[in-house]
Amino acid sequence: MILTVTLNAALDVTYETPSVEWGGSNRVGTVRQRAGGKGVNVARVAAALGSAVVATGLVGGVTGDLVLADLDDAGLRHDFVVVGGTSRRTLTVVETSNGAATVLNEPGPAVTADEWQAFRERYGRLQSQADVVVVSGSLPPGVPADAYATLITDSPVPVILDADGETLAFGVQGGPALVKPNADELARATGKTSVIEGARALQSKGAQAVLVSLGPGGLVAVTAEGCWRAVPPEPVNGNPTGAGDAAVAAAARALLAGDAWPDLLRNAVALSAAAVHAPVAGDFDAAAYTRLTKEVTVTPL
Amino acid sequence: MILTVTLNAALDVTYETPSVEWGGSNRVGTVRQRAGGKGVNVARVAAALGSAVVATGLVGGVTGDLVLADLDDAGLRHDFVVVGGTSRRTLTVVETSNGAATVLNEPGPAVTADEWQAFRERYGRLQSQADVVVVSGSLPPGVPADAYATLITDSPVPVILDADGETLAFGVQGGPALVKPNADELARATGKTSVIEGARALQSKGAQAVLVSLGPGGLVAVTAEGCWRAVPPEPVNGNPTGAGDAAVAAAARALLAGDAWPDLLRNAVALSAAAVHAPVAGDFDAAAYTRLTKEVTVTPL
Repeated sequence: MILTVTLNAALDVTYETPSVEWGGSNRVGTVRQRAGGKGVNVARVAAALGSAVVATGLVGGVTGDLVLADLDDAGLRHDFVVVGGTSRRTLTVVETSNGAATVLNEPGPAVTADEWQAFRERYGRLQSQADVVVVSGSLPPGVPADAYATLITDSPVPVILDADGETLAFGVQGGPALVKPNADELARATGKTSVIEGARALQSKGAQAVLVSLGPGGLVAVTAEGCWRAVPPEPVNGNPTGAGDAAVAAAARALLAGDAWPDLLRNAVALSAAAVHAPVAGDFDAAAYTRLTKEVTVTPL
Repeated sequence: MILTVTLNAALDVTYETPSVEWGGSNRVGTVRQRAGGKGVNVARVAAALGSAVVATGLVGGVTGDLVLADLDDAGLRHDFVVVGGTSRRTLTVVETSNGAATVLNEPGPAVTADEWQAFRERYGRLQSQADVVVVSGSLPPGVPADAYATLITDSPVPVILDADGETLAFGVQGGPALVKPNADELARATGKTSVIEGARALQSKGAQAVLVSLGPGGLVAVTAEGCWRAVPPEPVNGNPTGAGDAAVAAAARALLAGDAWPDLLRNAVALSAAAVHAPVAGDFDAAAYTRLTKEVTVTPL
């Protein structure tokens, strides 16, 4: 079973409107909403590919109720700890005339020490049934900055970490099996603009392997067994939100199956590109995925 | 008693952040929310000045629950019809580095014929206890475009109308005691750029009197008894959202008291300017209001 941890679960809201007058007053055409947060997106993609998945994390308030109801609607197994604060909403304003998307992320509920302790206990029980754990996304206020390091240290099974900034820098110290930054996150966390040097810096801090996403440029894996780069056959136009989560879902499935790194990379690039073809994070184009797995190029570095 | 009608009640949400990268991903610093919609703002201001007020309209869903809970917290009397859809949120994104405010208004719940009929019955009961009625703001989808004309025709007591576009154009045909467009709304509804000509055009369609708000330029009243202009002593910097609602609250209190037009105008301009001093719609600076009532200039036109 793949256990995904989403400590700052969200209701992802999308506003669609032809264009926005910034600084002015605007009427929104379409409003859509569904459960989100990076771990939830990973769980959706892995479950859609047939993996046994449980989504856990923290939710609260009326927004948390909407998140859980949406997970029920999607048929996703979940076991969240309910906190006293209110889960955040993330708003994406899509201007349909030019495709521009502006994202506004609320900070999330304030979490108490007791609530964090309650989560650690729930996590202890859940990961005893897990084969692979994914911890990803931002931390809500009140959760310790090194929370991911704690969760990784507490886990006897491989953990994949997908985080940014301090959360990433602290998290790698827990010794995750795999870290998946994008190039910007890697540079911010390490100060290195070279992908290989940055990945080596994360390894020196504790990461066992590093998967760097390069957007349309594919993925680079830096591991104890070697380094590889995987490239999609063509650049993909679409919605890049969720492409990284799809790559993480592929990586979790590969760790579970014991796949070799080149196979992991091939599937991760194909699934990531197939996610760009889909309109919302957590979805992917199944036909594109099947086709792309045959067309991705993997080369040793 | 002043009855305020808010058919498209809203949860007004404010995001504060130093600046927004439009087309990019942003973290929001502060999230605030409270019950809104123009009629609710009018009710808040009138109640704060000691008027007996009842707020009615349509609410629904989890957002509607939050609206009603906030009205309870504020101690505002309310009697809303609950609909099956979900009330809208209005989002104001304030960039604190430059003061720019971008407003994104959701459309509101889809209202059925039965729900609209239920509201007309509730309204019939409530306005039998009212001395003045205020109908203001946008209509949610499904409510007839001439809804305000119906509510005005149904009312034996004076009605103040504050609306825009078609809602305003249809509404004046009900014969409201007073209509309060701003200059832009007046020009859109009548095609006239002259304030006096525009106001006369609304009178020819059924409005008994017209109060035109000119932002920092004050107010113009065009009535059967004459025309006046009222000007604040100085331009006011601050939050203009809710200034029009404060003017309507002052007008409702003046109609209730039987004040002469120059007195109505003086109080409306002072209260409107005092609202600009306050950070959120529905509030006003009480000290500024007291001072400004002595400093507003009212001149016959």
